Amino acid sequence: MFNNSSYGPARHHSTYRPPPAQAPVPPYNSRPGFYQPQQGPPPGADPQLWQWFSNVDADRSGSITVTELQSALVNDFDLDTVKMLMSIFDTDRSGTINFTEFAGLWKYISDWQNVFRHFDRDRSGSIEGRELAEALRSFGYNLSPGLLTLIEQKYASEPTSGYGPPPGISFDRFVRACVAVKTLTESFQRFDTDGDGWIQMNYDQFMNTALSAP
Amino acid sequence: MFNNSSYGPARHHSTYRPPPAQAPVPPYNSRPGFYQPQQGPPPGADPQLWQWFSNVDADRSGSITVTELQSALVNDFDLDTVKMLMSIFDTDRSGTINFTEFAGLWKYISDWQNVFRHFDRDRSGSIEGRELAEALRSFGYNLSPGLLTLIEQKYASEPTSGYGPPPGISFDRFVRACVAVKTLTESFQRFDTDGDGWIQMNYDQFMNTALSAP
Repeated sequence: MFNNSSYGPARHHSTYRPPPAQAPVPPYNSRPGFYQPQQGPPPGADPQLWQWFSNVDADRSGSITVTELQSALVNDFDLDTVKMLMSIFDTDRSGTINFTEFAGLWKYISDWQNVFRHFDRDRSGSIEGRELAEALRSFGYNLSPGLLTLIEQKYASEPTSGYGPPPGISFDRFVRACVAVKTLTESFQRFDTDGDGWIQMNYDQFMNTALSAP
Repeated sequence: MFNNSSYGPARHHSTYRPPPAQAPVPPYNSRPGFYQPQQGPPPGADPQLWQWFSNVDADRSGSITVTELQSALVNDFDLDTVKMLMSIFDTDRSGTINFTEFAGLWKYISDWQNVFRHFDRDRSGSIEGRELAEALRSFGYNLSPGLLTLIEQKYASEPTSGYGPPPGISFDRFVRACVAVKTLTESFQRFDTDGDGWIQMNYDQFMNTALSAP
């Protein structure tokens, strides 16, 4: 099914990849109780990163709760993006982000900021339709024009009006859009076991897959 | 496929239905230019509804822009819910909501508020897992426990922590969750032309369907 004229998921290596979410590698002994965050950053920690972590960790408990993370990000990130980030980086499912998990989150956001700046060709601070199409194509996704329009409208930072071009996509929603395309594409590929470009699903599989995108 | 033991979309009439989004019926001549909103409510308009419309219509232009609607709802409704409402009720795709469209929106929100209060059994102000399951079952959706947990977490108003019960679903996100289940179920049923509980989709169909849920 995936000849040159049909749309489909990535079939080739692209030159520009969306940042992978890496499982954090503890730079120090992270055994509970061993490390006393009140006493300062762990050995070898980036001082600036430690500073930001401490600012977000309002109660100086040594780890960031969902509430603290939301307070820190709430003006810039919508709730669904914050929830997506928590689910990626709260690797021990504790409900809190420790400094090690925070370092992974920080790198992930920084990497995405570079991607965003790279594709925000007109430096408008948001990603417009043409920029979105280029970003997704460069990640290796071969999406139909209709699908690109749907994504542009779904993740736009404002409702689309009938007139004029759709509003652009802000940083947080751009990350969410790209992760949604990636998640759904990977789900499709898992179901497409014979690689013919068609999948068969029952209702429960379909609903679970569709609703698992951020 | 839909015997008693399998999960699936609605197969029976339920006693409690989610509010339908009705196309507004103009109570007056809505030809552009005919009606001068600055001069007061149209004949027969609900005075309280007119009052709320006028409050939201900050610049007294006679119609509500997306910006005005967002300003009015921003503290209570997340952006994706506002966008969903705009797409349902801006029936002429003008990018603005006139008084007639607003009356439909108002009724829709009021109806959903009644549904929300009905299923918020413990009067907590949010819908918890058991209440969500009951609401969706009463709408006729026969969803698996795993899918219900996914929906409960996806639409929860906070990230889910590893400990304790997941946070509840606020009003705006409850509406979005129910509309998402309805939209996806109807899509599934359109694809399941022979009604055997299985659908076949290619990549473009799958992505378009999954991403069209609010």
